[in-house]
Amino acid sequence: MEEGNRQVWLKSRPNGIPQAEDFAIRVTPVPTPAEGEFVVRNSYLSVDPAMRGWIADTSTYWPRIEVGDTMRAFAAGEVIASRHPDYAVGEQVMGIFGWQDYASVRPQQVMRKVLERDLSLSLSLGVLGLNGLTAYFGLLDVCQPQPGETVVVSTAAGAVGSAVGQIARIKGCKVVGIAGGEDKVRQCIEEFGYDAAIDYKRETDLETALRKACPDGIDAYFDNTSGAALDAVLRQINVHARIGICGTASFASWEPWNVGPRPERNLLVKRATMRGFLTTDFAERYEEAIGNLVSWIRAGKLKYREDVREGIETAPGLIRTLYDGGNAGKLLIRLREEQALAEEGKS
Amino acid sequence: MEEGNRQVWLKSRPNGIPQAEDFAIRVTPVPTPAEGEFVVRNSYLSVDPAMRGWIADTSTYWPRIEVGDTMRAFAAGEVIASRHPDYAVGEQVMGIFGWQDYASVRPQQVMRKVLERDLSLSLSLGVLGLNGLTAYFGLLDVCQPQPGETVVVSTAAGAVGSAVGQIARIKGCKVVGIAGGEDKVRQCIEEFGYDAAIDYKRETDLETALRKACPDGIDAYFDNTSGAALDAVLRQINVHARIGICGTASFASWEPWNVGPRPERNLLVKRATMRGFLTTDFAERYEEAIGNLVSWIRAGKLKYREDVREGIETAPGLIRTLYDGGNAGKLLIRLREEQALAEEGKS
Repeated sequence: MEEGNRQVWLKSRPNGIPQAEDFAIRVTPVPTPAEGEFVVRNSYLSVDPAMRGWIADTSTYWPRIEVGDTMRAFAAGEVIASRHPDYAVGEQVMGIFGWQDYASVRPQQVMRKVLERDLSLSLSLGVLGLNGLTAYFGLLDVCQPQPGETVVVSTAAGAVGSAVGQIARIKGCKVVGIAGGEDKVRQCIEEFGYDAAIDYKRETDLETALRKACPDGIDAYFDNTSGAALDAVLRQINVHARIGICGTASFASWEPWNVGPRPERNLLVKRATMRGFLTTDFAERYEEAIGNLVSWIRAGKLKYREDVREGIETAPGLIRTLYDGGNAGKLLIRLREEQALAEEGKS
Repeated sequence: MEEGNRQVWLKSRPNGIPQAEDFAIRVTPVPTPAEGEFVVRNSYLSVDPAMRGWIADTSTYWPRIEVGDTMRAFAAGEVIASRHPDYAVGEQVMGIFGWQDYASVRPQQVMRKVLERDLSLSLSLGVLGLNGLTAYFGLLDVCQPQPGETVVVSTAAGAVGSAVGQIARIKGCKVVGIAGGEDKVRQCIEEFGYDAAIDYKRETDLETALRKACPDGIDAYFDNTSGAALDAVLRQINVHARIGICGTASFASWEPWNVGPRPERNLLVKRATMRGFLTTDFAERYEEAIGNLVSWIRAGKLKYREDVREGIETAPGLIRTLYDGGNAGKLLIRLREEQALAEEGKS
């Protein structure tokens, strides 16, 4: 066990994508819980695209992270000390616990208690965490796929996209993925069961490729990218199509604002809907979603990929890895072996 | 009574906005109904922006009108002969009866029977026709205004826009109109009861003007124009805002496709919805809507303006009038006095 609490903190505010040298690691005392708090020992730390926005000056949903702050991050771990009646020592939790070994937290920081002990705790940061919940609500509530419809998803092999595609298949849809590179296209087809996948890096004419893959038009589109993929989709949507806006990853910046073909006319002529959403808007239904996601994973219908790096010292460079596409699945940092799981296995 | 059936027909396919010289008038025999049909004698003919699209090569919703065809148009009149059990002589109907004195029609061409005999039949082509229904469903179903919210509407003094604004007021919203010219802005405030109205022709900075008129942000926007108004609205929408796309009148053409600031990012950050709609998608609820619209008119809560031109010979030049903004209210052509209404008054 560590002698103290290692924390990755923001040393300088990056201009663009955060790099390893924008962070440093310090060691502070292991916290003890104040009244109403409890201490979590993190087993896994998450690396998410949103972290870039949390650091940027133009942070959108959360207060921005200041130089000197421990980096905000989702993490999963075990309660090791508690002065809160609802959180007992030994319980597993996932939430905003930061890039550090230990955190003394309040209940508001917890996203969920992790009860599915037969599955790795790491899943609570991916397919059973924000990624899976985002796919679940964005697809089922926003895109509302009906059996037999054609569903398209961008970043189709990613942590969110691959769950979207597989859930759409579970719901009886024809699923077409848009992904970058031969490997990802192969993953979409062979691993995640897409009906077709398009390599946007290779296709010179995305619109034609999409038309070939979607001969009956597009009924629903889960958009992680904005940009050329969205533009191509809009030209072939069916009447009453639904477009869920989950992310705009194809643009590195929105200053100055990006321009493109106006979608209003497509939306009007096709009586279609384009809707942005945040997963946290569905917070009161997380357990419903987790219940379904867990059952699909146990049944082998919902597959996932994890890219687990070892040790907190890898953290500073990993936001950049994410934006470079250098990860093969949900990017995580493992801090320690899963004791709880190991003990469970023994009993 | 006329000796025959005067019909306005398409003489040449216009390049852009249809002009008077693109039409001619011919006289054909007054039709007699075939089995399953009935003959309507039109009292009012409608002039609608959609007519331009019906004529254009790139007609969107309907088959295009060919040179030689009688001009497709909404009209309202009385059944004068019938070989259909559901339509009796003397009933008033509104539907697609064409720019002509008489039409032998099938039930599919009827939009509704006009039962509110205490109101002018002409209203069935405006505030109690497609305009009112468009305002009703586009506002209440697509924009979903809640009491106390701020609702913005473009072409705010128009036949659709003025109904949108007044219904939003009836529903307890703060209503801000965008209109072109001093007269229309005055109408919005004095006649239709808007809380504020912005003259987009005069304001050099629409965004700032809108921000001043909507200090609490914008919760719902009924968009008749696309373009600068939509762009300015998008930058000040509130969380969970709803944008209904009803028309794109600020663009004369969509070839080549119009470009502009991308709305995806606004929709995402504000978890907002942009939805295109067609009134005909709500056809099974027309009578619910008409019932409410009629009661608001009778109660003096829903005002309307009509610009009634006399005689079928005015028809050819009126599509252009509409696009020039040369009309002061719903543009109509009166073919004859309202006999039914006059008779009612006698009894």
